[in-house]
Amino acid sequence: MEDAGTVPCAANYAPLTPLSFIERAAAVYGGRTAVGLRGDARHTWKEARDRCVRVAAALATRLGVNRRDVVAVLSPNVPAMYELHFAVPMAGAVLCTLNTRHDAAMVSALLKHSGSKVFFVESSLLDVAKGALRRITDQLGTTSLPVLVTISDETNAGDSSRRDYEYEDLIKYAPSGFDIRWPVNEPDPITLNYTSGTTSRPKGVIYNHRGAYLNTIATVLAYDITTMLTYLWTVPMFHGNGWNLPWGVAMQGGTNICLHHFTAKVIFNNIARHRVSHMGGAPTVLNMIISGAPPPPRVFNEMEDLGFVVYHVYGLTETCGAATVRTWMPEWDALPAHERALLKARQGFQHIAIQDIDVKNSKTMESQPYDGQTVGEVMFRGNTIMSGYYKDIDATKESMAGGWLHTGDLAVRQPDGCIQIKDRAKDIIISGGENISSTVVESVISNHPAVLEASVVARPDDHWGETPCAFVKLKNGTSVTEAEIIGFCRDRLPHYMAPKTVVFEDLPKTSTGKTQKFVLGERARVTGSLTKTNSCKL
Amino acid sequence: MEDAGTVPCAANYAPLTPLSFIERAAAVYGGRTAVGLRGDARHTWKEARDRCVRVAAALATRLGVNRRDVVAVLSPNVPAMYELHFAVPMAGAVLCTLNTRHDAAMVSALLKHSGSKVFFVESSLLDVAKGALRRITDQLGTTSLPVLVTISDETNAGDSSRRDYEYEDLIKYAPSGFDIRWPVNEPDPITLNYTSGTTSRPKGVIYNHRGAYLNTIATVLAYDITTMLTYLWTVPMFHGNGWNLPWGVAMQGGTNICLHHFTAKVIFNNIARHRVSHMGGAPTVLNMIISGAPPPPRVFNEMEDLGFVVYHVYGLTETCGAATVRTWMPEWDALPAHERALLKARQGFQHIAIQDIDVKNSKTMESQPYDGQTVGEVMFRGNTIMSGYYKDIDATKESMAGGWLHTGDLAVRQPDGCIQIKDRAKDIIISGGENISSTVVESVISNHPAVLEASVVARPDDHWGETPCAFVKLKNGTSVTEAEIIGFCRDRLPHYMAPKTVVFEDLPKTSTGKTQKFVLGERARVTGSLTKTNSCKL
Repeated sequence: MEDAGTVPCAANYAPLTPLSFIERAAAVYGGRTAVGLRGDARHTWKEARDRCVRVAAALATRLGVNRRDVVAVLSPNVPAMYELHFAVPMAGAVLCTLNTRHDAAMVSALLKHSGSKVFFVESSLLDVAKGALRRITDQLGTTSLPVLVTISDETNAGDSSRRDYEYEDLIKYAPSGFDIRWPVNEPDPITLNYTSGTTSRPKGVIYNHRGAYLNTIATVLAYDITTMLTYLWTVPMFHGNGWNLPWGVAMQGGTNICLHHFTAKVIFNNIARHRVSHMGGAPTVLNMIISGAPPPPRVFNEMEDLGFVVYHVYGLTETCGAATVRTWMPEWDALPAHERALLKARQGFQHIAIQDIDVKNSKTMESQPYDGQTVGEVMFRGNTIMSGYYKDIDATKESMAGGWLHTGDLAVRQPDGCIQIKDRAKDIIISGGENISSTVVESVISNHPAVLEASVVARPDDHWGETPCAFVKLKNGTSVTEAEIIGFCRDRLPHYMAPKTVVFEDLPKTSTGKTQKFVLGERARVTGSLTKTNSCKL
Repeated sequence: MEDAGTVPCAANYAPLTPLSFIERAAAVYGGRTAVGLRGDARHTWKEARDRCVRVAAALATRLGVNRRDVVAVLSPNVPAMYELHFAVPMAGAVLCTLNTRHDAAMVSALLKHSGSKVFFVESSLLDVAKGALRRITDQLGTTSLPVLVTISDETNAGDSSRRDYEYEDLIKYAPSGFDIRWPVNEPDPITLNYTSGTTSRPKGVIYNHRGAYLNTIATVLAYDITTMLTYLWTVPMFHGNGWNLPWGVAMQGGTNICLHHFTAKVIFNNIARHRVSHMGGAPTVLNMIISGAPPPPRVFNEMEDLGFVVYHVYGLTETCGAATVRTWMPEWDALPAHERALLKARQGFQHIAIQDIDVKNSKTMESQPYDGQTVGEVMFRGNTIMSGYYKDIDATKESMAGGWLHTGDLAVRQPDGCIQIKDRAKDIIISGGENISSTVVESVISNHPAVLEASVVARPDDHWGETPCAFVKLKNGTSVTEAEIIGFCRDRLPHYMAPKTVVFEDLPKTSTGKTQKFVLGERARVTGSLTKTNSCKL
C-alpha cells in the first residue's frame, strides 16, 4: 500500500516523554496524595504538578535556564527531589542528580564537567555544596558558579540581595502562565547521571525523553505495579533516577513516601503507617541488588520469610535502570525454598522495552550457547539504552561497538535462555587456567551461618597465576577461622574454587553501597606480591 | 548541554513494534501455552512464534508478498486469526481483517479498495469469500484476484496444481531461515481496519507500528493486566484488532482461548475449564460497550452481581481501540450500587499513551468548561491515533483538522475533569432549541423493568423542530404501553426530554452489534413527515 491518506501531524504524533505522566496524574488522580513527608506536608497530584510547573517557570524566567541547560541537585529523597524530576525537564533542562555521599572535591568536579547552571542543595548538605562552590571560585572565579538554590522548609522572600534562593521561594513567587517546554525531539536529553562505578573515573550517562518514558513503563510492568500504589523511597533518587520510579509512581497515580534518611525501624514504621505497597528493597537487599554483583540466593528466602514479595531486576546506569526481570512462574511456588531461591537469583530475560539481549563472546561478537556453562558478556540493545557518555565520545563508541551495549558483566545462558550473571568481567579469577566466578564463591561463603557478607577477589600467585582471596565480614558475636571458611567452601565447591586466603574485616563500600572490589583487589594484589603467603590479614 | 558524547545507533534505537512482544514471549514464556482451541490443539509461545515466522516466510517467498502489501483475512477467532496478527507484519505486510458478517458484495468492495494480494478465509466463510472473488473476476478478470488461503485443519500438500492454499500447508512447507522484516520506520503501516460504522461508507483506518505498540501497552495497563493472564476471545479480532489484545496477550505472556463461535453457555464453560482471568465482556455488555454509544449504568451493576470486575474503556477504530479508561478509585467501593454504576458509566480520562484529550466546541476549537453541562466534541491527540484513512486524504484531513482527532462523539466534562459521553454528534435531538441527549433518555428507558434495550432518535416536528422518538425492545413475556414508557420518563426527566413517540420492535443492528441509529432515524423521519401524529408504529 502507498501512503495515500496518511497525515503525520500533532493529532497523531508527540515525542514520548515521562512529563506526560504527571500531566495525566494531575487529571486522573488530581485529588489523591502524590508526595508526602517533609514536615508531614502532603501534596495532591494537582498540587504537585502545579508546584513543578512553578519551579520550571522560576528556572526559565528568574534563573535564566534555557533548553538543554544542566541543572544539578544534591539531595536525599525529600519531596523537592521528587518534584525536580519533573520541574527541571519542564523547563527544557537536563537534571543532573549528584550522589549525596560525594565530597566537595567530587561535587565540584561534576558541577564543572556538567556545566551546571543551577545547583539545588538540600539544607543538610550545604557544607559539602559550599565547599564545592569555593573550589570552583578558587579555580575559575565567581562567574563560573552555578546559581545556588537551598531546599529547606523556609522562605527568605524579603532578602532580595542574595545571590542564592530558597526552593519554596521559587514556587511562591514564580510567574504564572508558564508553558511547559515539551521536548522537541524524542532523543532530547532529560537527565545526566554520573556513575559512581566501581572504578575511579565517573562517566556522565545521558538519558533521553524517549528512553525514560519507555523504561518507566517497562519498569512498572516488570514489577507488576498496578494503579495507585504507595511507594516508599529507600532507593536514592540520585541513583539512576531512582530506577525511573519518580516517573513511574506518577504514571500509576501512586503516593510517594519520601524519607530524608532511614533505618530498618524507620522503614518498618513507615510501611505500617502509610500502608506501603511497594519499595525498592530492605537495606541489606538494597545494597546487594544495586551492587551490580548478583545477590546471593539466601537473601530472597530471608526476605520472603519477612513477608515481602521480591522482584529481581538487573540493569546498569547505562540501561536507564532495570533491563531484565526475573519473571516468576507460578508453578515454581511448589518447589523447595532452596530451589526457589536459586531460580529467583537468576537475572532472567529482557523487559518489554529492551529490544534484544544477548550473551556474546566479547571479541567475536558470537552468541554463546544455551548451556549454562559458557561464559560471555551481557549485551543489550533497545530504546532504553543511554544516548552516550557526556563529552566522552570514545567511551560511548567503545561501549556500543557493533551496535550493542557492552555491559562488562559476564553471564551464562541457561538452557531455557535465562541469563545468569556470573561476574563482572574484571572480577573473574583465573586460576591454573580455570575461570572462577567470584560471585559463586561469595554465594557459598554467604551461606555460612556466621557470615554477614563476603567478597572474593583475585590474588596473584606464582604457581596458579591467581587464587581466590575472600574478604569476610562476620555477624556480630560470631567467630570462625580461616580454615573453617575454606573447609566450608571445599565441601560445596570444586577445590580449585575454594579461597586460598580469608581476610576478616569490614568491606569497603562506594557511596551507593557497592563493595569496592577494586580496593580489595588492590589489597590482595599488593599482599600477594609482597608476601606470597597463604594469608593476607591487612 | 551540547550533544557531545551521544551516538544514535542500533544499540540505543529500534522502531517500536508489537512484533517485539512475541519475540520476547517466545524467550520468556517459551514453554507456556500461547494459543489454544482449534480442535483442542495447543501451541506454546515458542511454537506460536515459529508458526508465525513460517507463515511470514511462506507469504514472502511462496506467495510473493512484499513490504507494505495488504493481506486480508476473513475469519472468526480461531488460532490462525491470532497468528496472522504477527505473521503478516513479520512479512512486512499490512493485515486487513474483514468483518465476518459482511456479505460477498461488501467483501469484494473491501478487497478491491485495499488492493489485497492474499486473502485468508476460514473454512466456514468460504461461500461468502468465493462469492466475493467471483464478483472481482466478473468485474476485473482473474488477474486482479488475491491468492486464496483457506484456514482449516487440513493440508492439501499433494495437490500442487491448485491456485489456492491451505493455511497448515503454508506452515508445513515454509522455507526455513526467514528473517523477520522488521519495520524500517515507526510510522510504517501494520494493519488496515475498515470501520463498519453506523453510516454507509466504510473507511480504511491505517494503524502504524508505533501506535500499535504504544496502544497495546496502554490497553494492558488500563485493565491492570499483569503477567500470564488467561484471555477468552469473545471480542472479534477483526474489530479494531481485538482492541490490541492479540499483541497484549503476547506482551504479558498470557494464554489465548480462541472461540470459533460462542453462546453464554460456551463462555461460562470456558471460563471454568480454562480458569479464564480476563475477557472482553459478556455478550450483552460486549454489544453495548463496543457500540460507540455509552452503556447504561445498570449493565455494570448486573455484571458485578455475576462476579465480574468490569473495566470501562472508550475508544474508536480511529484511536486504535481504547483511548480512555474509567480508573476506579478504591473509596468509591463504599458507595451505594446505584452511585457506583453512575460513576463507572462515565468514560473517564485518557490512558497513558494518549497525549491529550479535550472536549471542545467543534467550531471555535475552544475547550468547554468543567461544569458537567456544556456539551462539546471529544477530541484526542497522541501517538495512538491512526495514520489516516486509506486513499481518503480529504476524510483524514477533516478528521484531524486543527491537530486534533475529531471523534464525532459529544460529551461533557464533569467538575473533576472526567469525560462523560452524551451522544454521537449526529444523534443529538434538538427540540424547541434545547439539546436532548438521546443516550440520557435511553438510559432512563433501559431502567424500566420490562425493557431489554432502547434507542432514541429525532423525529421531525412542525412545532418543536424535532422530538424524541423511542424504539424499544421488551423482555420476553412482558408488556407495557407507550403511555407507560412516556410517563416513566416524565417522572425521571424534564418533560421536554421524554419521548413523544414510542415504537416497540427489535432494533436493527450492524454486523458488529451496534444499533443502526441511522436506520431508525430514517424511519422516524419518514414517519414524522408523512403522518405528523404522535405514534410511529412501523
